Amino acid sequence: MPVDVVDKLEDPRHSKPEEGWREKLYEIIFESHTRAGKIFDIVLIALILSSVAVIMLESIEPVYERHKILFRSLNLLYTILFTIEYILRLSCVKKPAEYARSFYGIIDLLAILPSYLEIFFPHTHFLMLIRSFRLLRIFRIFKMINFLQESRLLVFSLIRSYRKIVVFLSFVVLLAVFLGSIMYVLEYEKNPGFTSIPQSIYWAIVTITTVGYGDIAPHTALGKILASFIMILGYAIIAVPTGIVSANFLKEWRQEKQNPLTRCEHCLLEGHEFDAQYCRRCGHQLEEQS
Amino acid sequence: MPVDVVDKLEDPRHSKPEEGWREKLYEIIFESHTRAGKIFDIVLIALILSSVAVIMLESIEPVYERHKILFRSLNLLYTILFTIEYILRLSCVKKPAEYARSFYGIIDLLAILPSYLEIFFPHTHFLMLIRSFRLLRIFRIFKMINFLQESRLLVFSLIRSYRKIVVFLSFVVLLAVFLGSIMYVLEYEKNPGFTSIPQSIYWAIVTITTVGYGDIAPHTALGKILASFIMILGYAIIAVPTGIVSANFLKEWRQEKQNPLTRCEHCLLEGHEFDAQYCRRCGHQLEEQS
Amino acid sequence: MPVDVVDKLEDPRHSKPEEGWREKLYEIIFESHTRAGKIFDIVLIALILSSVAVIMLESIEPVYERHKILFRSLNLLYTILFTIEYILRLSCVKKPAEYARSFYGIIDLLAILPSYLEIFFPHTHFLMLIRSFRLLRIFRIFKMINFLQESRLLVFSLIRSYRKIVVFLSFVVLLAVFLGSIMYVLEYEKNPGFTSIPQSIYWAIVTITTVGYGDIAPHTALGKILASFIMILGYAIIAVPTGIVSANFLKEWRQEKQNPLTRCEHCLLEGHEFDAQYCRRCGHQLEEQS
Amino acid sequence: MPVDVVDKLEDPRHSKPEEGWREKLYEIIFESHTRAGKIFDIVLIALILSSVAVIMLESIEPVYERHKILFRSLNLLYTILFTIEYILRLSCVKKPAEYARSFYGIIDLLAILPSYLEIFFPHTHFLMLIRSFRLLRIFRIFKMINFLQESRLLVFSLIRSYRKIVVFLSFVVLLAVFLGSIMYVLEYEKNPGFTSIPQSIYWAIVTITTVGYGDIAPHTALGKILASFIMILGYAIIAVPTGIVSANFLKEWRQEKQNPLTRCEHCLLEGHEFDAQYCRRCGHQLEEQS
Repeated sequence: MPVDVVDKLEDPRHSKPEEGWREKLYEIIFESHTRAGKIFDIVLIALILSSVAVIMLESIEPVYERHKILFRSLNLLYTILFTIEYILRLSCVKKPAEYARSFYGIIDLLAILPSYLEIFFPHTHFLMLIRSFRLLRIFRIFKMINFLQESRLLVFSLIRSYRKIVVFLSFVVLLAVFLGSIMYVLEYEKNPGFTSIPQSIYWAIVTITTVGYGDIAPHTALGKILASFIMILGYAIIAVPTGIVSANFLKEWRQEKQNPLTRCEHCLLEGHEFDAQYCRRCGHQLEEQS
Repeated sequence: MPVDVVDKLEDPRHSKPEEGWREKLYEIIFESHTRAGKIFDIVLIALILSSVAVIMLESIEPVYERHKILFRSLNLLYTILFTIEYILRLSCVKKPAEYARSFYGIIDLLAILPSYLEIFFPHTHFLMLIRSFRLLRIFRIFKMINFLQESRLLVFSLIRSYRKIVVFLSFVVLLAVFLGSIMYVLEYEKNPGFTSIPQSIYWAIVTITTVGYGDIAPHTALGKILASFIMILGYAIIAVPTGIVSANFLKEWRQEKQNPLTRCEHCLLEGHEFDAQYCRRCGHQLEEQS
Repeated sequence: MPVDVVDKLEDPRHSKPEEGWREKLYEIIFESHTRAGKIFDIVLIALILSSVAVIMLESIEPVYERHKILFRSLNLLYTILFTIEYILRLSCVKKPAEYARSFYGIIDLLAILPSYLEIFFPHTHFLMLIRSFRLLRIFRIFKMINFLQESRLLVFSLIRSYRKIVVFLSFVVLLAVFLGSIMYVLEYEKNPGFTSIPQSIYWAIVTITTVGYGDIAPHTALGKILASFIMILGYAIIAVPTGIVSANFLKEWRQEKQNPLTRCEHCLLEGHEFDAQYCRRCGHQLEEQS
Repeated sequence: MPVDVVDKLEDPRHSKPEEGWREKLYEIIFESHTRAGKIFDIVLIALILSSVAVIMLESIEPVYERHKILFRSLNLLYTILFTIEYILRLSCVKKPAEYARSFYGIIDLLAILPSYLEIFFPHTHFLMLIRSFRLLRIFRIFKMINFLQESRLLVFSLIRSYRKIVVFLSFVVLLAVFLGSIMYVLEYEKNPGFTSIPQSIYWAIVTITTVGYGDIAPHTALGKILASFIMILGYAIIAVPTGIVSANFLKEWRQEKQNPLTRCEHCLLEGHEFDAQYCRRCGHQLEEQS
């Protein structure tokens, strides 16, 4: 599964049609080495950025009140443009289903969906901000291949450690449930903040994660002692996810370091250590490669 | 002791009776490869989840006021069911004492104890939320063996670093005591927040751990300077537990990856990878060692 | 580019004139092994420190009101002195353009610029505090070469990981945009704090980074649940930059410790320690390589 | 210097007198293998703990008002007892000056000093809480040698990384000065919290370190944008000290791991890598040792 997930982060490969208008369209929309492709990319980024800015401004009430009609027409325009773009993308790739299921394909769909959902559920209007994720394309467009490789490495590392992190976070949540309910027992009669156990659990999460809003804070002496204990606990266990990720990055880098050029000529095993002279599987002597 | 602690995290092994109704009951309650076992596990998880939800809802006063009788009967029901379950578990294992002292055995007991304590100490009612820890069984039930192994590794690493972490946390507490009392001297006449030294120590812990509620904050210039120093200190020393755990994870992983038992009989090189069959230095065949 | 950036952190090398008054001036201003040079350095540090203190005091209104004229004349004096110093520095180096573009050259310019900008934009007055960065010279002046090397290593490591960190931070910002807009949808009608999407994004950043001012906090149940999720997320992903930097420090140190240029001519083993004179595998003498 | 500092953490070695009452006193006070020594240690810990508790209770005004005379006499008693103890310690070691300058010697002195300073400066009364540091003796007394070794390792690692951490923290402080003064320019007319630059710097430190009290928070749009930037910066650079310490812990452990048993018979060089067969300094073959 990990490899699967990472592959979906890439645009679909082997998807370029061989000839005709679809090949040309593909070159413009998906690639950026032609003049038309570059212009398309820059216009697209500008559209995404301006549409995100429009939604943000729209949410500021006095601004919205003054320019109601402008905002509505702009939103309509963006929806039409992004829908056309999505249809074009679908129509010019060789395997539309593969594109639709790829990481960018899903983002592209999610970016237009709220505009249509809005007709039925007006509250979903601001979910259009999911469009901002389309900005991830910037990395691809500006040939920032190195950045992409870095993010692949990041994603790989996180996927490899996700089991440990899931175990860790379940533990943190259970701890918050338990400590929150103890705090409730200690505080609920003397403190208007600890009105119920879910509220206390919310407070425990705010405290363990060291966020500490201060909208709810312990009042009793016992509550403060337990709170101090929870804080120190949160301060100490933040080390765990960090340790997991650090160790994984180092592993990743070590595997990168393992001599990729040495391959046993006999059994074709790769990934020998740097000081290896004989294949560890078949005992055949390894040849030196520069 | 470390090994001991980790072993207690597992269900008792070698505890399955060889025949009779106890063997069948064991299969249903402790195992999950039979149909009855699967149904039992799912019902159990559902019961735990719903009982946790009931306790949480109960703590919200307006909800409780409206459904008082419902909540009381539900709590009685859960207590009876979990007690029966605990008795069944005890009766079907070969060595009941071993189960009772195992990690899950203790959790199972703690989950029913508050219901009985409540008769004498009404305030312990919400400690029933300790039941939520029974959800840890989810990992075992759904055959998430990999997750369990990961958590074993986590627990191992933490146990190996617990001495360093204890030393570190004692130091943090002593620091909080000392800095809190200095802050008290600086602030107590000008600031209604720093009413006493224990209160100042509480503030110092809130600050060192970077939680920062803001319910108490320095008012004087000197107090703010010292507070800035404490914050920077807390920001810097959070590196210590993280460093400890990171280094330990790496050690753990290194030891896991390299077979410490394999040694080339010919050139005496140690530390071969687990899949190695031939020495990477001299090409001599490695012998199998258990 | 990385090497370039780090080189700019150093004072221009090979820039000392060979003879005449410019050589002497260079010795006084840029070097510190002569008596005059030492006095110049100490006076300079004193001037920078006092000018920083003056600007800080000036910003406290009651203090400023009482000593208006004193502050104005002091500021004029500092501006004149630092301008003269900058001109002298430019005039005594061999390649003034190189100095002007170096790290310290830019800081020196930025330290006097706001004084002149102030004539046109009064609000830039307090940007003069950029002078405080000139204090970085302290490391160089007091022969704290080890500290400088350490900071080079730090800067190197950070530069090597900047791509990963940029990818990570863009991701955090996109996440804040997305989660902030969801929170806005959940809270804006019941909570006077979430007035607009930009405000909600600000809140999301305050929460993800675990700062947690508490000036805005969720009021609705759903909002609190999402906020808890965001906090736990922030608590978990702080592990990512830490992991990146930890792994890079280790790489840096490894590369520092092992001489990459030394290779045994006989058995081709690489990665000998710096003090190695004989191959640790075959005992053959290692040849010196520059 | 590092070695020096760590040595001071230990009680003075080779300091035990050879004979007479001083030897016996030394055994009681400094050692704990005799019956009298154990009793002395337990009484001492009890005295320290109770004296710390007394000072804390004393600071709670209503408690103090009621038991004024009791507190005064208790404080007098503790001062007398700890002074006698300090004099006895000085008198029974072979080299009193060495003890007085050792880590524990300084703590012991600091624990009685405030009681005498109080006569002249009443405000130093609560500095007596420095006595709590004497509790560090617990580690030594209860033969928790492993804990001591761990703390030595911790202290070693921190001392080795102190240069990098000093550079890093100076940078954080300069950043806080600079960003604080920009925030002051942006906010001071619209926000009663940002009254002066020192106040803004205090706010910047509260924010960079992710403490986030919320007693001061930005009001303007520009201020919030800059604040968001500062938070993300603080969130990212916390990785730096953690990375430094992690890398150092690993180094420490690696050096521990380097085969301590292998020593070149010819040139006596120690610390060969595990796969070394020939001395890297003189090329002499290393002998196998179990």
